[in-house]
Amino acid sequence: MSGRLAVIGLGPGDARYLTFEAREALEAADALYGYGPYLDRVPMRPDQVRHVSDNREEASRAEAALRHVAEGARVAIVSGGDPGVFAMAASVCEAIETGPDSWRALDIAILPGITAMLAVAARAGAPLGHDFCAVSLSDNLKPWELIERRLDAAASAGFVIALYNPVSRARPWQLAKAFALVGRHLPGVTPVIFGRAVGRPDESVTVTTLATASDAAADMATLIIVGSRETRLIAREGQSPLVYTPRAVEGAIA
Amino acid sequence: MSGRLAVIGLGPGDARYLTFEAREALEAADALYGYGPYLDRVPMRPDQVRHVSDNREEASRAEAALRHVAEGARVAIVSGGDPGVFAMAASVCEAIETGPDSWRALDIAILPGITAMLAVAARAGAPLGHDFCAVSLSDNLKPWELIERRLDAAASAGFVIALYNPVSRARPWQLAKAFALVGRHLPGVTPVIFGRAVGRPDESVTVTTLATASDAAADMATLIIVGSRETRLIAREGQSPLVYTPRAVEGAIA
Repeated sequence: MSGRLAVIGLGPGDARYLTFEAREALEAADALYGYGPYLDRVPMRPDQVRHVSDNREEASRAEAALRHVAEGARVAIVSGGDPGVFAMAASVCEAIETGPDSWRALDIAILPGITAMLAVAARAGAPLGHDFCAVSLSDNLKPWELIERRLDAAASAGFVIALYNPVSRARPWQLAKAFALVGRHLPGVTPVIFGRAVGRPDESVTVTTLATASDAAADMATLIIVGSRETRLIAREGQSPLVYTPRAVEGAIA
Repeated sequence: MSGRLAVIGLGPGDARYLTFEAREALEAADALYGYGPYLDRVPMRPDQVRHVSDNREEASRAEAALRHVAEGARVAIVSGGDPGVFAMAASVCEAIETGPDSWRALDIAILPGITAMLAVAARAGAPLGHDFCAVSLSDNLKPWELIERRLDAAASAGFVIALYNPVSRARPWQLAKAFALVGRHLPGVTPVIFGRAVGRPDESVTVTTLATASDAAADMATLIIVGSRETRLIAREGQSPLVYTPRAVEGAIA
């Protein structure tokens, strides 16, 4: 028996964002590991076994999956969005680094998916059309001072900023603080996009400005994009506006 | 007749990275616009018309496609990777903003794709597992001084950096300069990944360090990921190393 681990990005929402590569790997798996709501999105055969774990149990999920692969199973770990962006791929690497030496010889494939910022950006226009960054607002895994420093650096240098994990029950104040921080560098009219559950029946994408953006509009499943000084808004009658960041900046040589 | 424009991300490489949504939209199109090498990747029906344009003709391609949609056609514009990341979606928005008012009423859908940094990251491990940014090194569209400022801000604040458009015949020196700039903030052992043509027969992904990274290893089709101080390398016998950036930073509260 020759085990194999596929770390699979489902993309946001339903199967429309799934790649062909990801679907094939899901079909080839004997066992699927993941957070329940992600596993619920995957069509399963009766001979496939589900191993459901909680949202915060990434490390133990990765270890359990690797043990299973070492026994010869074809295992899939599923992530929403892309597994490499604030998700399971880093947990799997960490488990391999700290686990038995034999795990380094296992067959591991990481399959990319549509991460939330790309899906939300597409719904709104092209806010990520120029240089941008992605920052997780969760201070469970890093000091809040570091998050502040990164937001400051990004906003002052003109990056569009995608905010992952903006808020949770245990982290109620971080998002309002983040808006205030970037507001020291950006005018109040800067477009801000709240995207939630893109590709699902309860999808919601709203466009507002930095001056009026409220942290109350976000929850754990929300991805927020804060524009730069260059980000523009095109009003459209009877349709939501298009938000985009032009590819060219004034002062370019061409 | 009711026209429609789909701006479609093909992902890198072959059809394995195509989403179901993108495939459906390609099949529904009467006419496809794009750069030749991207259009060559799309299976076409005899009744579909190809409109090939050059790599640098984004603005005129977007305008031609919008005129076609205004006449009632179902049009697809294809981009490699994701159309919202240094690609066609921003050009389409710009054409709508500067074009006839009637274009604002057109039916426009932007369909996300796997952008190069996600595909290269997945091949290497999980280098984008923590906060990261994407910077285009092309100074055709922005002043070089702005690129320098952004690289400086990103490297000093601990972002992993994905470099798009690292080099071209007309821009031979920018990448070496970029490595030197981030090297003021990062140790020579910092992992650097060169990814080229992921998902294609001539795919190449190599891992090196900032001290030994050479701009000669890159061309127009290369995507480069420069790690942060936290980025780690796991050696594996008989396999390429895994590169990942842990989700947790020392000093976190949990």
